[in-house]
Amino acid sequence: MERLNRKERVAAILKILSDNPNKVISLSYFQENFNMARSTLSEDVTILKKVVEDIGVGSVETVAGPTGGVKFVAGIKEEEKERFLLELCESLKNPDRIMPGGFLYTNDLIFSPDITNKLGIIFASYFKDKDIDYVLTVETKGIPIAMMTARYLNVPLVIVRRENKVTEGPTVSINYVSGSTKKIQTMCLSKRAVKRGSNVIFIDDFMRGGGTASGIIKLMEEFESKVVGIGVLIEVKTERKLVQDYVSLLSLEKVDEENQIINIYPRIL
Amino acid sequence: MERLNRKERVAAILKILSDNPNKVISLSYFQENFNMARSTLSEDVTILKKVVEDIGVGSVETVAGPTGGVKFVAGIKEEEKERFLLELCESLKNPDRIMPGGFLYTNDLIFSPDITNKLGIIFASYFKDKDIDYVLTVETKGIPIAMMTARYLNVPLVIVRRENKVTEGPTVSINYVSGSTKKIQTMCLSKRAVKRGSNVIFIDDFMRGGGTASGIIKLMEEFESKVVGIGVLIEVKTERKLVQDYVSLLSLEKVDEENQIINIYPRIL
Repeated sequence: MERLNRKERVAAILKILSDNPNKVISLSYFQENFNMARSTLSEDVTILKKVVEDIGVGSVETVAGPTGGVKFVAGIKEEEKERFLLELCESLKNPDRIMPGGFLYTNDLIFSPDITNKLGIIFASYFKDKDIDYVLTVETKGIPIAMMTARYLNVPLVIVRRENKVTEGPTVSINYVSGSTKKIQTMCLSKRAVKRGSNVIFIDDFMRGGGTASGIIKLMEEFESKVVGIGVLIEVKTERKLVQDYVSLLSLEKVDEENQIINIYPRIL
Repeated sequence: MERLNRKERVAAILKILSDNPNKVISLSYFQENFNMARSTLSEDVTILKKVVEDIGVGSVETVAGPTGGVKFVAGIKEEEKERFLLELCESLKNPDRIMPGGFLYTNDLIFSPDITNKLGIIFASYFKDKDIDYVLTVETKGIPIAMMTARYLNVPLVIVRRENKVTEGPTVSINYVSGSTKKIQTMCLSKRAVKRGSNVIFIDDFMRGGGTASGIIKLMEEFESKVVGIGVLIEVKTERKLVQDYVSLLSLEKVDEENQIINIYPRIL
């Protein structure tokens, strides 16, 4: 890399940190690549802390110790989060989304990179202090949101399957009862997907009775691992859920197919 | 936002552009938010072009005209791409990955955010000039890579399902013959997922006979849309494929279960 002047270098360092969210990058990496003194780098980091806070996209944090350095942690301002979730609700209230059977079509939103990316940042910021080893999801619709959450936490994504696949080698399967339909369902996970003694979070797009989430907790017991957080985008308001401790961003109160009315609102406001 | 000085502002503008890959942001957005003159902004953009090129993470491009502005396009240097793909091959050659039946376990790699993110940048840079409307994939394993590709192209992801789902409303289904096993397979897509007259690319983790890719081309005909690009991470070396025009990053020549040998190499070197 050629020698950059200060304003170029500050931008370059932020770009590198921000491309590697939640990853500690050693100070010597920057010193060597930008050919700069430690004291100058410290000043640059101070500038970056201010910039990131000022535009409200997270924080730049200094990590002390031998494996220390500096890292970017993605975040979102409270008012920006509220605005975003309210907009999402407005879009979800469109009666055009009601499918036969009272289901809600959401794919265009939850697979839209802008939205998926913001949801990843929001979920990651709920769980960032929990020392997570993996982000789990069950195929299929929650995968994009879970992938973005994994990216901002900088941990691997694990996709639990609905049936056994030859490409995954020996698997652990469990049966569980769906919270809403009371049907027996299966989930399978490759034995090598999760190391014993891990902390995982479960991320999904939708929760009705909580059967899937509760199934994931049982599945993780088979891996001697622990679900330390559950995050869902939309929860359906029900009398009782099979799990108690979870974060949901939106609450779906009613889909009235006859009168074409959808009641949904941000949960956290 | 409080008034930032120049080095802070340059970093802030790059962060905002880089958080919105392939999205044109108007110059007036920055002028208003950072309270700056057009001439100063032009100078800042010139600095950013140099920084981004220098650290090899893509380009900052100026778009002229009434809807014009400036955008960040993610990219990767050729030598960095080669290094990354060679490392990936080294990791894939580990005999521990051979599953009964000669399948290769790849989930830990293709679901690892660092790798998935780089693959998204690589695929996006192949197809960025093709005026893409959607990135398509078929559930399940290709979804994370396809999501990242969609993010860097700034277009929606569309997930084709293996069976009909009640949450997706009316669907179009097609049957197709697998290129390798010659089995009849089905794929389904919600009628509202793709607008008529769209250009799409198909992204997947694995291609054997090309049956799935060729199925996707047929499916898109039902939507009066066109597959203008196909990208797969690993292609299995076969005599003949059902599709000819595709990009593959790695070529899998042999998985020798008996002698525990995997031959795989980067395709583009």
